[in-house]
Amino acid sequence: MAKEKKLVEAITSMEEDFAQWYTDVVKKAELVEYSSIRGCMIIRPNGYAIWENIQKELDRRFKETGVENVYMPMFIPESLLQKEKDHVEGFAPEVAWVTHGGLEPLQERLCVRPTSETLFCDFYSNIVQSYRDLPKLYNQWCSVVRWEKTTRPFLRSMEFLWQEGHTAHATAEEAEDRTIQMLNVYADFCEQVLAIPMIKGKKTDKEKFAGAHSTYTIEALMHDGKALQSGTSHNFGDGFAHAFDIQYTDKENKLQYVHQTSWGMSTRIIGAVIMVHGDDSGLVLPPRIAPTQVMIIPIAQHKEGVLEKAAELKEKLGNFRVKVDDTDKSPGWKFSEQEIRGIPLRIEIGPKDIEANQAVIVRRDTREKIIASLDTIEVTVGEVLETMQKEMLERARAHRDAHTSSAADYEEFKSSIENKPGFVKAMWCGDRTCEDKIKEETGATSRCIPFEQEEVADTCVCCGKKAKSMVYWGKAY
Amino acid sequence: MAKEKKLVEAITSMEEDFAQWYTDVVKKAELVEYSSIRGCMIIRPNGYAIWENIQKELDRRFKETGVENVYMPMFIPESLLQKEKDHVEGFAPEVAWVTHGGLEPLQERLCVRPTSETLFCDFYSNIVQSYRDLPKLYNQWCSVVRWEKTTRPFLRSMEFLWQEGHTAHATAEEAEDRTIQMLNVYADFCEQVLAIPMIKGKKTDKEKFAGAHSTYTIEALMHDGKALQSGTSHNFGDGFAHAFDIQYTDKENKLQYVHQTSWGMSTRIIGAVIMVHGDDSGLVLPPRIAPTQVMIIPIAQHKEGVLEKAAELKEKLGNFRVKVDDTDKSPGWKFSEQEIRGIPLRIEIGPKDIEANQAVIVRRDTREKIIASLDTIEVTVGEVLETMQKEMLERARAHRDAHTSSAADYEEFKSSIENKPGFVKAMWCGDRTCEDKIKEETGATSRCIPFEQEEVADTCVCCGKKAKSMVYWGKAY
Ligand SMILES: [Zn+2]
Ligand SMILES: [Zn+2]
Repeated sequence: MAKEKKLVEAITSMEEDFAQWYTDVVKKAELVEYSSIRGCMIIRPNGYAIWENIQKELDRRFKETGVENVYMPMFIPESLLQKEKDHVEGFAPEVAWVTHGGLEPLQERLCVRPTSETLFCDFYSNIVQSYRDLPKLYNQWCSVVRWEKTTRPFLRSMEFLWQEGHTAHATAEEAEDRTIQMLNVYADFCEQVLAIPMIKGKKTDKEKFAGAHSTYTIEALMHDGKALQSGTSHNFGDGFAHAFDIQYTDKENKLQYVHQTSWGMSTRIIGAVIMVHGDDSGLVLPPRIAPTQVMIIPIAQHKEGVLEKAAELKEKLGNFRVKVDDTDKSPGWKFSEQEIRGIPLRIEIGPKDIEANQAVIVRRDTREKIIASLDTIEVTVGEVLETMQKEMLERARAHRDAHTSSAADYEEFKSSIENKPGFVKAMWCGDRTCEDKIKEETGATSRCIPFEQEEVADTCVCCGKKAKSMVYWGKAY
Repeated sequence: MAKEKKLVEAITSMEEDFAQWYTDVVKKAELVEYSSIRGCMIIRPNGYAIWENIQKELDRRFKETGVENVYMPMFIPESLLQKEKDHVEGFAPEVAWVTHGGLEPLQERLCVRPTSETLFCDFYSNIVQSYRDLPKLYNQWCSVVRWEKTTRPFLRSMEFLWQEGHTAHATAEEAEDRTIQMLNVYADFCEQVLAIPMIKGKKTDKEKFAGAHSTYTIEALMHDGKALQSGTSHNFGDGFAHAFDIQYTDKENKLQYVHQTSWGMSTRIIGAVIMVHGDDSGLVLPPRIAPTQVMIIPIAQHKEGVLEKAAELKEKLGNFRVKVDDTDKSPGWKFSEQEIRGIPLRIEIGPKDIEANQAVIVRRDTREKIIASLDTIEVTVGEVLETMQKEMLERARAHRDAHTSSAADYEEFKSSIENKPGFVKAMWCGDRTCEDKIKEETGATSRCIPFEQEEVADTCVCCGKKAKSMVYWGKAY
C-alpha cells in the first residue's frame, strides 16, 4: 500500500503548482524522458503511441484533400536559407549549424531545418513549369530543430516532431482557399478527435510567420487559463516565388509566379491534450486518441476462472483498443496506473461479477461506475466511450467559455488579464504600438483576430482610437 | 506521338548501361529529385508512397512481436558517441557535426545520429533497474546521416530514412533469439511483400557492425548480378551494457548486465525493388507494395459513357488501390506513364469493351492481356494480382539461382567473379587474410556465411587450408 500511495502522491496538485503538475504528469505517465542533450526529449512508447494516432488521423484527412507525402533533406545550405529576407531574419538566430562532415570542414555551413519553406521552394522551382503542374499539394512528417533557450516537454523543445504541408498554386485565390481549408482541417480534428475546442482566426502582423503574407491560427485554452497556439496555416502570396523564381507558363503561354501556403501541427498538441483534459490523478485521454481505450483489471485474479474470463472479455471487445493488466501488481496499484496514464475506461471483473454475469466499467474522467451485462458489454463500452468523448469536448468548451471575458476599456482589460486567467476579448485599432504596449504592461499577447467578430466596444482598448477589429488576448505558452 | 516516344526513349536499356538505367528509372518514375545539398535526395510522392507501404507492413510485423515505437533525439553529444570504442571508431569518420546553436558556439559538439545505439544505451541505463523492466523492445522510424563520399539515390545517400530497433534483454540467449527473430521478420517481409528472395546468414568479423558481437544479414541479388545487403540484425552481447553501465537486479537480487540487439531496414530496400524487378520500360512494382495497384485507362474517353463506365469500374474495384487516368493525354502516353511507374495492372476500357461488357487487363510484368467480364472483374483483378505477386518472386528466385555458382578453387573463383555476375559459393578457412586478399584481387566481398551450409569443397578457396564454412561471395552495392 505504501508503494501505491507513492505513485499517486508523486503528482503535484494542479491548484498548488500547475507547471509542476504538468511536469509530473508527463514523467509519471511515462510520456517522455529527459535525454543527455539539453532541450531534447525522448518520446516514450506511451507518448509516441498518442503521436502515431494523431498522425494517422491527420494524414488521412490531408490525403482526402489531395495532399501527397514527400521527404525533403534535413539540411539547408546557408545561402538557400538566406534567399527570403524576412524568413532568414526570423529563423537564423535559432538554428543549429553543421560545420563539419566527417573529418573535413564544410565549404558552406548547413543548418538543420527549423522549417522547410526554402527547401520546398527550391524543389518547386525545379519541377513546376506549366499550369498543368499545379497545384502541388505536398506534406512531410519529420523533426525540426530550433535552438530554444528554455524548453518544456512537448510545449517547447529544441527538436520536435511535426508535419509541414507546403503547397503551390496558380492563383492567389486558390492559395488563400487552401490556407483556410487546412486551418479548418486542424480545427475539426482538434474538436472531433482531441475534444479541444478551438478559436479560429488570423494572427496580427506582429505575430505572423516569418515571410508570410498572412498567418491563420487555432488557439486553445488550457486548464490554467493560458492560451496555446495549436496549429498554424500560412499564406505566402507570391513572396517566396519571387525570391526563388518559381514561375509557370499559364494557358495563354505567359509566365506567372505561383502562390504558396504552408501549414503545420506538431507534438506540441500533445501538451494541449494534457493541459486541457488532465486532472490531479494524471492524464485523461479522449477515447478517439487513446492508444489503449479500455484496460481490463481482473479482481482476485488468482481465483479460478478470473483470468480466463478477462481474456474472453478482451476478445469480445475486439473492436476497441483494449488490454488486460494481468501482472502481479495489486488491483489498487493497477487502478492508479491506469488513471495516471489516462486510459479512458477500466473494466473491473472479479469472481462476484462473473457470478452475476457482469463487469464494472469506470470512466476515467468522471469516475462514474457503470454495471454492464457481459452479454452486451461491447455495446455498452461503445456507448460509454462515445459519451465520454462528447462530454470531454463539452466540458472543455464550458471551461473555455467560463474563462473568456470582454473588456471595454484598458482598466477593465488589465484587471481581467491579472485576475481572470483566460481569454480576454477586446477591440484593437490595428496599430502595432498598442499591441506592444499591451504585451509590455500586462504580459498578454494578441492570440488572434477571430473569424467570428463581435463588437465589444467602439474604440481600441489601449489607445481609445477607432477600433478595427476584435482580438482575443491572453497569456500564452 | 513524338512526345510519347521521348518519354520511353529516355530510359537507357539495362544491357547497355545498368547504372544509367537505374538513374533514369528513379528520375523518370518520379521517385526522387536531386536537392541542392550534395548527396541528399528529395523523395517524391511516387517514391514516398512506396516507403509508406513498407513502413505499414514492417511496423505491423514488429508490433506483433511486442515492439513499441519511441522517438530519440537526432543529436548525440561527442562524449556519448565515444563511450563504446569500436562503435566510435566505426562511425566518427562519417558523421556530420553541429558546432553552433543559434549565434553561439557549443561547449560540446553534437553529431547528427548515424545510428542511435549510444542514445538507446543512455536511455536504458536510466530506465532499466529490475528484471521486471526487461525486455525493452523499442523501435524508431527516423532519418540518419552518414557523410558518404559517393552517393546514389536510395542505395547510398548522406541522409536516409530507416527504422532502427533496439532491444535489451535479461539473458544472452534471449538477445540471440531476438536477433534471429527480427532477421526472419525482414526476410519474410521481403519475400512475401517485395517478392525478393533473400539469403540469410551471418556476417564475417570484417563485415560486421561497429561494436557488435555478431551481425546477421539478408542479401539479395540484383538484376545485374550484384549483391545488395538489404537488412541487418546485430547481437551486441553485453558489450554496450558494460560501456554504458546498463545493469538490472535479477530475481536473486544480484546485479547483471543486460544483453542488447539492434536491427535496421532503410529506404535502400526501394533500390532493391527497382533493381530486382525493373525492366527497360521502367519500374515494376510487386502488387502488395504498389501505391497504385490498378490504373484504369479509358479509351476514346470523349465518347459518351466511357468516363462514367471507368468511374463505375473504379467503384467496383474498391478493395484495391485503384486510380483512373482521365487526363487529356493520349492513351499511348498514359500507357507509357503507367509502365514507367511500375503500376502492376492497367485496365483499358473503351466503347467496344463496354458494348461487349468487358475490359482488358494488362499485366505490367509479362504484358499479358486478359479479357475480363465486367460482371466479375473484381475477382479477376484479385486473382491476377495474386498470380503476378507469386510469379515475380519465382522469377526473381530463378534469376538468382541462375546467377549463383560454386567454386572449388581460386582459379575457378576468380573466373566466376569476373565472368558470371552473381553470387559465388566457396569455402573459407575463417581467416581475415583470405577475405582481404579475395577482395583486393577480385573485388568480391564476403556477403554472408549462410545459415544453410553446403560443402562445396574441403579447403579454403583462397589459401587451401582446411575450410570452416561456406560463404556467399559477390560484388556488392
Ligand atoms: Zn490602439
Ligand atoms: Zn583461407
